[in-house]
Amino acid sequence: MPSTITRAAVPLTKSYLLLNHGPVTLVSSAAGGRRNVMAASWAMPLDFDPPKVAVVIDKATLTRELVEASGEFVLNIPARAIADKVLAAGSASGREGDKFARCGIATGAAEQVAAPLIAGCVGWLECRVIPEAHNQQAYDLFLAEVVAAWADPAVFTDGHWHFPDDARRTIHYRAGGNFFATGEDFSV
Amino acid sequence: MPSTITRAAVPLTKSYLLLNHGPVTLVSSAAGGRRNVMAASWAMPLDFDPPKVAVVIDKATLTRELVEASGEFVLNIPARAIADKVLAAGSASGREGDKFARCGIATGAAEQVAAPLIAGCVGWLECRVIPEAHNQQAYDLFLAEVVAAWADPAVFTDGHWHFPDDARRTIHYRAGGNFFATGEDFSV
Repeated sequence: MPSTITRAAVPLTKSYLLLNHGPVTLVSSAAGGRRNVMAASWAMPLDFDPPKVAVVIDKATLTRELVEASGEFVLNIPARAIADKVLAAGSASGREGDKFARCGIATGAAEQVAAPLIAGCVGWLECRVIPEAHNQQAYDLFLAEVVAAWADPAVFTDGHWHFPDDARRTIHYRAGGNFFATGEDFSV
Repeated sequence: MPSTITRAAVPLTKSYLLLNHGPVTLVSSAAGGRRNVMAASWAMPLDFDPPKVAVVIDKATLTRELVEASGEFVLNIPARAIADKVLAAGSASGREGDKFARCGIATGAAEQVAAPLIAGCVGWLECRVIPEAHNQQAYDLFLAEVVAAWADPAVFTDGHWHFPDDARRTIHYRAGGNFFATGEDFSV
C-alpha cells in the first residue's frame, strides 16, 4: 500500500528530540525483497552528534533477520490515530505473511535506507546499524546512527512538538494493548 | 535530608513496566562516602527476566565516577510534583557541592544497593552494572540488572499505573525545561 507521506526534514542534531520523551516506535526493515514492521518500546537516543539510537530487536523476529541482512532500519514514531495498527504490528509475526497488508499499514519511500517510512506516523528516523556483534548476540541490542530524520510539519517543527489534536499525539506503550497518550506539556 | 518513602515491592519480572512508557528518570549513585543524582531521559528496559536496563551516563559527570566505582545505581521515576527538582538535578553538577541539599531532594535507603532512593518519585529500580567496558567507553552506555524494584502503591500496583492525580503522574522530558506529563490511558 504506497502512500503519500507529508514530511519535512529534521536537522540531524535535532533528531533526538523526536525520541527524547520515550514514545513507542515502529521498526521498519527491508532486505532481499522482503520487508517487515514491528513495534518497539525499548528504543532511546544514544548520542546527539552524530545522532545515534539504541533499540532492542529480539532474535526470534523477522525484523531481526532483515536488519542484520541490510544493516538498516527506520524508527517510525506513530500517532494515536494508528494505535490499533501498532498493537497489530506488535502482536503478529512477519513470518506468517506480509504484515503491512494484514495490519493495513501504508508506507512511503525513505531517502537513505531501503526500509520504508510508515504512514500515520509523525516522526521518522532513518538508521544505519553500527555493527556491535556482542551487544546484538548477548542482549538483542542494536546501536545505530541516524542518517536522515523527518517529521510531520503539522506536529513537529523547529525542534518542538505541537500536537494539533489528540489523534496526532505520540503514544507510550504500557502492556496488554494499553497505551498512554503523550499528555499536557509544561515548563518548570 | 532523610525522608520516609512509601513503597511496595514490585516483582522483578514486572519491573520493566515502571520504565516501559519512557518516563524521565533520576539516576542516584553513591561510592566512597560521596553520592549524587542526575536526570536521564536516555534509559530503557533491556530484558524481562532477569530484568535489565540500559542507560546513558556521560563521562563528564560525577554520577559516572560513582557508578563506575560502586557498580550500582538506582533509576528513580519522578512524579510531576518534583519536576522542578528533576530540572535542577539535570542542570547542576555534583562536582560543585551536594546536589541533594542544593536541589532540595530528600532520600531514603535502598535495599540492595548503596545508592539512595529519591523521595517524590513513584517508582524505583535498584540496579547492578553488568560490566561492559566497550559500551561504557565508546558510547557512555551502561547495562545493568535490576536487583530490586519498588513503587508507590497509590500510583502503581499489580503491574498497572493508576495515577490518582496530576501531581503524581510520571513525566517525559523534551528539552529546555519543558516536559510532557504522561497523558490519558487508552486501550485498542
